[in-house]
Amino acid sequence: MQRAEKLESIVKKRLLYWPSSEIYGGVGGFYDYGPLAVQMRRNIVEKWRRTFVLPYQDTIIEVETPIIMPEIVFKASGHLEHFTDYVVSCQKCGRRYRADHLIEEALAEKGIKLSLEGLSGEQLDEIIAKYGIKCPACGGPLGKSERFNLLFKTTIGPYANEAGYLRPETAQGMFVAFPRLAEYVGRRTPFGVAQIGRVGRNEISPRQGLIRLREFSQMEIELFFDPQNPSCPYFSEVESLEIPIVPEELVAKGNTEPLMITAREVVARGYANEWMAFFMALAAKFMKELGVPLERQKFLGKLPQERAHYSSRSYDQMVLTERFGWVEVSGHAYRTDYDLSRHAQFSGYDMALERRLKEPREIVEVRVYPNPQAIRAKYGDKMGEVIRAIQSNQQLVARLAETDRVELGDFEITRDMVFIKREVRRTDVEKFIPHVVEPSFGLDRILYVTLEHAVTIEGERTYLRLPPDIAPVAACVLPIVKRKEYVEIGRSLVRGLWRSGLTAIYDDEGTIGSRYAMCDEIGTPVAITIDEVTPQNNTVTARDRDTKSQVRIDIGMVVLFVTKILSGRPFGDVAAELGGIVFRNT
Amino acid sequence: MQRAEKLESIVKKRLLYWPSSEIYGGVGGFYDYGPLAVQMRRNIVEKWRRTFVLPYQDTIIEVETPIIMPEIVFKASGHLEHFTDYVVSCQKCGRRYRADHLIEEALAEKGIKLSLEGLSGEQLDEIIAKYGIKCPACGGPLGKSERFNLLFKTTIGPYANEAGYLRPETAQGMFVAFPRLAEYVGRRTPFGVAQIGRVGRNEISPRQGLIRLREFSQMEIELFFDPQNPSCPYFSEVESLEIPIVPEELVAKGNTEPLMITAREVVARGYANEWMAFFMALAAKFMKELGVPLERQKFLGKLPQERAHYSSRSYDQMVLTERFGWVEVSGHAYRTDYDLSRHAQFSGYDMALERRLKEPREIVEVRVYPNPQAIRAKYGDKMGEVIRAIQSNQQLVARLAETDRVELGDFEITRDMVFIKREVRRTDVEKFIPHVVEPSFGLDRILYVTLEHAVTIEGERTYLRLPPDIAPVAACVLPIVKRKEYVEIGRSLVRGLWRSGLTAIYDDEGTIGSRYAMCDEIGTPVAITIDEVTPQNNTVTARDRDTKSQVRIDIGMVVLFVTKILSGRPFGDVAAELGGIVFRNT
Repeated sequence: MQRAEKLESIVKKRLLYWPSSEIYGGVGGFYDYGPLAVQMRRNIVEKWRRTFVLPYQDTIIEVETPIIMPEIVFKASGHLEHFTDYVVSCQKCGRRYRADHLIEEALAEKGIKLSLEGLSGEQLDEIIAKYGIKCPACGGPLGKSERFNLLFKTTIGPYANEAGYLRPETAQGMFVAFPRLAEYVGRRTPFGVAQIGRVGRNEISPRQGLIRLREFSQMEIELFFDPQNPSCPYFSEVESLEIPIVPEELVAKGNTEPLMITAREVVARGYANEWMAFFMALAAKFMKELGVPLERQKFLGKLPQERAHYSSRSYDQMVLTERFGWVEVSGHAYRTDYDLSRHAQFSGYDMALERRLKEPREIVEVRVYPNPQAIRAKYGDKMGEVIRAIQSNQQLVARLAETDRVELGDFEITRDMVFIKREVRRTDVEKFIPHVVEPSFGLDRILYVTLEHAVTIEGERTYLRLPPDIAPVAACVLPIVKRKEYVEIGRSLVRGLWRSGLTAIYDDEGTIGSRYAMCDEIGTPVAITIDEVTPQNNTVTARDRDTKSQVRIDIGMVVLFVTKILSGRPFGDVAAELGGIVFRNT
Repeated sequence: MQRAEKLESIVKKRLLYWPSSEIYGGVGGFYDYGPLAVQMRRNIVEKWRRTFVLPYQDTIIEVETPIIMPEIVFKASGHLEHFTDYVVSCQKCGRRYRADHLIEEALAEKGIKLSLEGLSGEQLDEIIAKYGIKCPACGGPLGKSERFNLLFKTTIGPYANEAGYLRPETAQGMFVAFPRLAEYVGRRTPFGVAQIGRVGRNEISPRQGLIRLREFSQMEIELFFDPQNPSCPYFSEVESLEIPIVPEELVAKGNTEPLMITAREVVARGYANEWMAFFMALAAKFMKELGVPLERQKFLGKLPQERAHYSSRSYDQMVLTERFGWVEVSGHAYRTDYDLSRHAQFSGYDMALERRLKEPREIVEVRVYPNPQAIRAKYGDKMGEVIRAIQSNQQLVARLAETDRVELGDFEITRDMVFIKREVRRTDVEKFIPHVVEPSFGLDRILYVTLEHAVTIEGERTYLRLPPDIAPVAACVLPIVKRKEYVEIGRSLVRGLWRSGLTAIYDDEGTIGSRYAMCDEIGTPVAITIDEVTPQNNTVTARDRDTKSQVRIDIGMVVLFVTKILSGRPFGDVAAELGGIVFRNT
């Protein structure tokens, strides 16, 4: 736990994050992010966009939808029914626990390990009875397991009955807006929709710091495709990338060791379709570039009872941490047409797109024609309105073939008010509901995992070896001693970095060694030093965080130097390119 | 309304935004943002950071705190008590209305204009009675005005009594975290804390599109300073900038015409302190750079009854729109020590910082010393724990000078358990609660205002003259005709732009004229055309959105060209610098 412990002390000392509302004793599952973490989060988001969105701008678009959504959305999505955990209450002290966590912890003390995912309330109650599990706080007896819905509920507007919920995933905003999004891309597939934003899950017992939060940030893509054509036009870019994968068939046998195979092989063996494999390959590369080697990653297949209610196939991208063991950083779900079909059903809105048939064929269509006499008899001079309503709601009115009456706004349409005809016509298109592949990333967990993997211990020295584009501060500016001349040059230099939009720290207090250590500790890739030579020839030294090697460069080059380092170029190359002289610090 | 109407049609056609949950009939006060608006929002946020945060990194830090906060926070902040509007219900149909809006609309029909801000429920009821105002939907009689709290309420965790609320401003997260933030900056003033994020206000009757939303995004700064020293170290940077201001004294006289005076003059006349004037000057410049000339801005002083409960002085930065008249885009409030003092009071946490005295002085301090005998008598071998608790809670225990008992966690401390001494000591510091100046920006409104001001109508041509750094798409790549050779070059070029992190559209359908128009309509500053010369000498044309003038540049220069345009350099200058030949399109 050496790295995790070092990280914990850096987090505390440099105030990366802390429990929210701390002055009021804190609230479980909520964290505040300090300045350094805010910048790292921003950098991770931008890297994610550069990996998943920006290179594919003709296919993947971005949206922003609200966090609060009305009740009907979560009825349709199935979250009101399925997005639950079991809670047990102590009969004596009234404390409430998440049933599976309580059992896991009680059994762990007895050295027993059971998989509880997907068990029913009755099954959980049986285990509690069998092992005599009691309230861990007061030892009292536990009641029956009850379902507890994890949606944060609220009320929208001044009427008490208008329920709203905080979204538990950004996804629903994209499904509900599907008609608009499809319109945006010209109603063609495949296309993807990305969203980055906050979500809420009212966990019964949040824990493990940033790992299980009640409010957190997601980066998600819903990729809509024609199920008859799951091919990804960008697949060739990733096909030879390796994916450490544990397919369902191995998981079912209790094997969780990943196979290290290429994306091409993942598809060839039927473990995933091209779109899923595409995103998994990018996700593996993304985490690798954040500092997590493939050997500490795996994509774990989820068995049917372990999957979310909307998913017909899922992989969790897991990263091995020192502190929490394997942690899920992204989920890859094949949501089929579940969500769009449900929203079509609940809204009455047609969510289908059209595909061109290889050859035209004849189809039978039910057409509805208004019967003006019957309509006038019932609605008099509103006849025109009623006729227009019927014409623009063909599908709905066609239900009169099986039912007696249909409501169109304020009008009730009865069977006698329409003529229903079955018509045969030739067509070269057919309708389909797109299928969805969803990669979904948890920003907060990725932040933690990136930090832990960055901790580097070299003898007495500990620093964060963060990728330069993720480091919260791009450069530190350090006069070697606090002499007026150096201070002026240093302040002017740091202002120049700030004005160029770069993050930079100026520091002239304490020894240069302790200041280097402070910079390294938060992963600053470059430290610029103003020394006795600077006032003479306008050069400064730039020091590499990882090797501590230094190079002397012109002061006018500093912004460019730092910018190139942030783009991922090695220190030595940048130094050579900008004509610096490399020397090693004594 | 010509520009506003043109904008509305662009918003619809290019799907900038639309009502959320539209397939379910929409929910008032919630909007989805399409791809172009998401990018514009991101660009506005980055410009805001470049204006208010990045150049002042030694003074202004950034944080991110949760949207959901526990009830005690809003008890302390005063929002549970004061953050209300009056609602009236129709006695017949049950519909509910925001009282002031209802009255305003009813009186407007009669040609009467009244200022209702700050009126009590009784006063509103009197007006309703006096003018015989009825339910606008059914004509029924209206009941009494009742206070309606605008906080979205929810429950945190599995216990029904743990209320939480969605923050109505990002500010409270920063006040509550003040001890940590002060620690981060070394407990010195002045320092500012910026936060960008979503907030929720359960408006009774949201309206005016993006102007009055129930969920929206804020960009806020809480600037903490010593009230004995309200000077801003950066003031000289802004002192000669002009601020169109309507001071309170003019507002009180019914005058709303702004004075156009410099920031220096604003301070000299006592209209604002340096920090307020600093942010107001930057805010005026910010909006100006977004395309709103100073002549269409004003900072309107708020009279005491119009101010929020926490504010002792406020200006609303208003922008004149075609569609909605004057719209507030930012608020500038002097919150004094209201919030920190309230949170200190409700949490028992010391929020004070220390300032150095000009000369040392003697102060009387109440010190508390444990009485071991009395403690052992009551707590036996827990004595050590109790003594430590007393020592580390001096302030709390000192209350025993006036009261009988004090609770420290599980221990009850009575008067006999301590010796209380008044000690005189010399000190060269004294405590103070920092004061706060808060500039608070509404991102959604700024987006609208920027869009409306960008609409440019030149004869038949309508386009968005957006600042290049705000435009959602940096460049369009357009083969002059859809010939295989051109298409390949074009696709390769657009991929190069994407890989450089730039937003770009590739389009090869339709006439070149219609494609230029499509690019201009969404404010794309540069259109790159591949024509018959391109395959011969690797040059393309770059076309300026505003002047339609064109320049021929090397294809390898395109990324650099676009990047320079985004940085705000004029088209002609960039063209000249990169050696292009300018010509005018026929």
